[in-house]
Amino acid sequence: MFMIIMAGGSGTRFWPVSRRNRPKQFLNIIGNYPMVVETCNRLRPLARDEEIVIVLGQDHLSQAKELFKGRKIHFLAEPIGRNTAPAIGLGAIYASYVGNEGPIAFLPADHFIGKPSGLLDCLRQAEEIANAGAIVTLGIVPSRPETGYGYIQWSADRPDFWTLPAYRVTAFTEKPSLEKAKQYIVRGDYFWNSGIFVGTPALILKQIEEYLPNLYLGLKKIERHLGTDAFENVIEAVYEEFDSVSFDRGVMEKTKDPVFVIPCDCGWSDVGSWASVYELREGECDKDRNFAEGECVIIDCEGSFVSSKGGRLVACLGLNNCLVVDTEEALLVADRKRSQEVRRVIELLRRNRKENLL
Amino acid sequence: MFMIIMAGGSGTRFWPVSRRNRPKQFLNIIGNYPMVVETCNRLRPLARDEEIVIVLGQDHLSQAKELFKGRKIHFLAEPIGRNTAPAIGLGAIYASYVGNEGPIAFLPADHFIGKPSGLLDCLRQAEEIANAGAIVTLGIVPSRPETGYGYIQWSADRPDFWTLPAYRVTAFTEKPSLEKAKQYIVRGDYFWNSGIFVGTPALILKQIEEYLPNLYLGLKKIERHLGTDAFENVIEAVYEEFDSVSFDRGVMEKTKDPVFVIPCDCGWSDVGSWASVYELREGECDKDRNFAEGECVIIDCEGSFVSSKGGRLVACLGLNNCLVVDTEEALLVADRKRSQEVRRVIELLRRNRKENLL
Repeated sequence: MFMIIMAGGSGTRFWPVSRRNRPKQFLNIIGNYPMVVETCNRLRPLARDEEIVIVLGQDHLSQAKELFKGRKIHFLAEPIGRNTAPAIGLGAIYASYVGNEGPIAFLPADHFIGKPSGLLDCLRQAEEIANAGAIVTLGIVPSRPETGYGYIQWSADRPDFWTLPAYRVTAFTEKPSLEKAKQYIVRGDYFWNSGIFVGTPALILKQIEEYLPNLYLGLKKIERHLGTDAFENVIEAVYEEFDSVSFDRGVMEKTKDPVFVIPCDCGWSDVGSWASVYELREGECDKDRNFAEGECVIIDCEGSFVSSKGGRLVACLGLNNCLVVDTEEALLVADRKRSQEVRRVIELLRRNRKENLL
Repeated sequence: MFMIIMAGGSGTRFWPVSRRNRPKQFLNIIGNYPMVVETCNRLRPLARDEEIVIVLGQDHLSQAKELFKGRKIHFLAEPIGRNTAPAIGLGAIYASYVGNEGPIAFLPADHFIGKPSGLLDCLRQAEEIANAGAIVTLGIVPSRPETGYGYIQWSADRPDFWTLPAYRVTAFTEKPSLEKAKQYIVRGDYFWNSGIFVGTPALILKQIEEYLPNLYLGLKKIERHLGTDAFENVIEAVYEEFDSVSFDRGVMEKTKDPVFVIPCDCGWSDVGSWASVYELREGECDKDRNFAEGECVIIDCEGSFVSSKGGRLVACLGLNNCLVVDTEEALLVADRKRSQEVRRVIELLRRNRKENLL
């Protein structure tokens, strides 16, 4: 099965560990390898390296090549980031170009999957349905009224002869308010949007042609120059003209063609903040729910996440629900429950022209 | 006036800035110069450098000499720390030896004095009374029921002809419980013990002879070798035998001779913890009562003390009453109100054999 890994994120939420030149997907935020490597590795039962393509920013190409040295994974470098719609379109034209007309899976590079077999099972089912000519997304059964995720509404109405564990999507929803998120949980007909979906390149490109015609024209122009010397100049010029738009918003929310969703039990997390890393590592916490890595001294703390990777001893005394992340060049100390706001630090650094710390 | 500066403290409460090899008195915790330098400088109107003696640990002698390069201040190095009674006795025998029989002031090296003129006025008054043959301590009018200080109880009974602003001491009290400290404030007949006192060497040594006879014998032995080649060996052997005892507990609390106390309004603080540094620097705080020094980014914090001297940016987000002290080798993050407990970090480091961080 052909796999497109979307690794274009800029990763501001894991500052100071993540930086402009090494965003989250290239770090081993959780697990033994950088997240993009973990993402590729867990697909091994379904895809050989030759069937994996990573779409990423030009600035990160050399470090990605270094990470996958000796492996036959292909890279598609975007000259500038324009959100997921262009990245997915680029992946689709490339898949066609190399002769893959069957269903492709599109997967974010920087998510955590606690139970890879659950993901692989769903991808196999999705491939089957996509083969019949539909886009199939993977949905996660929500466990809390999360306001940081998109949601997928589904309908249980399906013909009697239906045997696949998939449902019709009735709506894609952006990040909701807390009130709405609570309603979604109570209603029970919403999944979290995992950002993972499967479809044939022809169908993906047809959807783009219909709902994002400018993007489609640009992609066709790029397609004509694939494998030529002019490719780099063309992609640069074309990307400059693209709007920044997500595939969910630009296509999925608008399409009138049937989209299906498969509920996927795979221990999924988008690892969106230090707080979610803390939750994923709960099992490694001490009896007072503190997580500590690196050289640390923890005294009378509770619910705190302490990471010392700056080569310095970190001593914590009497902290509650704190986040302490030390690196060689910068240190973050925050209320753990406000780790979503770490981007405010970056905004301030940008305003203060601390370019070297971004 | 002859001055003995007691600079023997080990300073564990300002970790990670203070360390075994650079205790608090040798750091500029507050003010422009190291505390021991500030202490000597503020005495200038009363004492020439030749009249100042600093009693300190052998291990700190070379850095102290470096600090006072070019000045005629004398140093007495103790081979091991045995609390204040031996240090004060050593100062007294040295003062005698160099021909000073008049009143000497003994002052801790690591206190903050916001109003030096108040201190100098009191020292002049104390000298006058000490000349008449008494020990005179300086008391601080307490502003809160502090449990971290010793207290001095005084009596307002004094003869009609008395014109000096001094009172008879009726008791020296160790650090009290909070309940007792509150009673002291309400009663109004207690001062904080500043640790500063004045007396002639003869009287100091007579008191030591009476209440700490072993110490007295050792000091006499040291006295006999002052200025000889054998001095270093003798002081080393003698100190080994000394008990570790404070002058307050060993002499002041026991003496039946009259001791006087002068209330001293000099903006005094013993600067006993990071919390007290924070209080002293209140005027430099932002509108949310945050103090920040070095390269810091402070977002939505309150009542926090942030010091970045490790050459690294420190970003704080959503902290309440936190203490963040970053140095090159170690970082402390603590509840500001528990800064008295920083010594627990040191105990743990000692147990874990992190000698290089002590």
